[in-house]
Amino acid sequence: MSEALPLGATIGILGGGQLGRMLSLAAARLGFKTHIYCPDRHSPAFEVTPHKTLAAYDDLGALAAFAEMVDVVTYEFENVPAGTAEYLAALKPLRPGARALSISQDRLAEKAFIGGLGIPVAPHRAIRDAGDLTAAMLALGAPAVLKTTRLGYDGKGQRKVTSLDDATAAFGELAPHPLVLEAFVPFVREISVIVARGVDGTTAAFDPAENVHRDGILFTSTVPAGISADTAAEALRHATQIATALGYVGVLGVEFFMLADGHVLVNEIAPRVHNSGHWTEAVCITDQFEQHIRAISGWPLGDPRRLAGVVMENLIGDEIGAIPDALGHSIRPHAYGKAESRPGRKMGHLNRVALDSPQK
Amino acid sequence: MSEALPLGATIGILGGGQLGRMLSLAAARLGFKTHIYCPDRHSPAFEVTPHKTLAAYDDLGALAAFAEMVDVVTYEFENVPAGTAEYLAALKPLRPGARALSISQDRLAEKAFIGGLGIPVAPHRAIRDAGDLTAAMLALGAPAVLKTTRLGYDGKGQRKVTSLDDATAAFGELAPHPLVLEAFVPFVREISVIVARGVDGTTAAFDPAENVHRDGILFTSTVPAGISADTAAEALRHATQIATALGYVGVLGVEFFMLADGHVLVNEIAPRVHNSGHWTEAVCITDQFEQHIRAISGWPLGDPRRLAGVVMENLIGDEIGAIPDALGHSIRPHAYGKAESRPGRKMGHLNRVALDSPQK
Repeated sequence: MSEALPLGATIGILGGGQLGRMLSLAAARLGFKTHIYCPDRHSPAFEVTPHKTLAAYDDLGALAAFAEMVDVVTYEFENVPAGTAEYLAALKPLRPGARALSISQDRLAEKAFIGGLGIPVAPHRAIRDAGDLTAAMLALGAPAVLKTTRLGYDGKGQRKVTSLDDATAAFGELAPHPLVLEAFVPFVREISVIVARGVDGTTAAFDPAENVHRDGILFTSTVPAGISADTAAEALRHATQIATALGYVGVLGVEFFMLADGHVLVNEIAPRVHNSGHWTEAVCITDQFEQHIRAISGWPLGDPRRLAGVVMENLIGDEIGAIPDALGHSIRPHAYGKAESRPGRKMGHLNRVALDSPQK
Repeated sequence: MSEALPLGATIGILGGGQLGRMLSLAAARLGFKTHIYCPDRHSPAFEVTPHKTLAAYDDLGALAAFAEMVDVVTYEFENVPAGTAEYLAALKPLRPGARALSISQDRLAEKAFIGGLGIPVAPHRAIRDAGDLTAAMLALGAPAVLKTTRLGYDGKGQRKVTSLDDATAAFGELAPHPLVLEAFVPFVREISVIVARGVDGTTAAFDPAENVHRDGILFTSTVPAGISADTAAEALRHATQIATALGYVGVLGVEFFMLADGHVLVNEIAPRVHNSGHWTEAVCITDQFEQHIRAISGWPLGDPRRLAGVVMENLIGDEIGAIPDALGHSIRPHAYGKAESRPGRKMGHLNRVALDSPQK
């Protein structure tokens, strides 16, 4: 494997939040150095490496110096500006690549791409003006969900609408335009698949997780999910197909809605390690962070099998106070080292390991 | 638990080798900062935190400044100078404490302490001069093992001797004096137990590992060990008794010789995380590094149960080249980020996970 990054090489990571931090910890276990690039001086990832750049994402001088110091560039968030991605990709390998970024940054492009693969997505329409909105509400019916096409996360940038008046008000409030109106999907479960694809095109997926959200933010991920083997196989097949079609390198998160008939449709994808994959660090031979680092380094992918069942629970805002006093048996905690707890802010997570669950 | 160190506190670590590095990574997962103190500018642990002190262990000014910046002090090696330990312990909690250090730094004191608890150790004699040596060879018989009492590691500072002439020659070559002559123990297996004790006196032990050495250096640790439940219980009981008798706080490694009758005697103890506990990171709910950080932070101890069987294999010198190309399935690798590979130098390890082994 001549493309493999050697031990001691430096991995550049755009973004200094908890995902960048956990990627950096995983890279260290594999013998790599990491360099974190982030404009926020309080970035928790700055605490786990001596190599950092504190600069804006559009600071070309800082980006050039950063590229000079690293051997490969990755990122912890999908909203890396297109110009930044293109600039860096011209200097060092950018993994996942610019195409995965541009598609996942735009809900319309993402749905078009996935739908074009023959993989179901929610019925939807692009909304550029009031005429679009009226036609779309007629076509899709109520309730529906009006969303920004860009920069949404954790339930931000979207509103459930139940009438045209409602939708018109939301259209005036949500930004940036254009928006997308999605038919409300009567899902019975939310699941996700974390799939990895290596430089050599091999793929490896973790078991599907069943996700529960609270206030638009992921609350728990449970593995094994309460789904049939057929549903699991369908979700794994879709996720792998998307990674392959993108020519993807790294770990990709794919969120699904499961319908009453057991079939799934893709809600959205994230070209990075994913909150709903945090359970892997407690029970898998290779966790999602190590898997991502292996993939972008041109290393062979690791073994994604799990050794036990698990429930991952996010700690939001002051819930971080559950650490350490409420740490009962069979819990593996992870705190992100954020100095300040704010409502809605992801501060850490707990993995509750279930030893009586079958291995897979 | 009012003594618990809060999230965001800083853990000071003496020693910047792979054990300090792995402790730092575990501390980060728990939301702590770490500060590494080491005189070697190429310390691999310097790569996983921005906080470091590059200074000699007897530099009182540097030690005072270090103590000022941290909330608790621990170490990755048992040969912390007594003066350093005392100086730091007067400024900040030193865990494990100075007593564990002073006892484990001296083979004679260690054997006296353990023997005094009624726990078997190898028959041995202190050797201060030629007269001691003659008497001891007569009393213990040949073969025997002549060892330094201080500063031995990885088979260094010891020689197997088969005659008085042999022993006399070794006496002249081994330093520093005094030495200790140990009867050769006809062991059938080497096992070890990693036990933790919290600030509140609770204890938790990992399953015994079976160890194989090569050229005096640990080669593999296998769990479950090929020993009976009675032998395992005896080893766990002894290890726990030692930790409790020392008033110990942290993770303690206890190495045993198992005799043909299934009983064990203590070979030596190490007041730190231990190479023969590296398997825990691949298969345990809480690994030895997190367990040590929890203990010294006054946190509740974690769950030491394992989710699968495992064989840990050290990568010595150029064997590190097995990463990444030889990474087969079900292997979890760990590379220590050392810039230079030298013969006999521990460069990393592999954990081969055995999913078909029962959980415990």
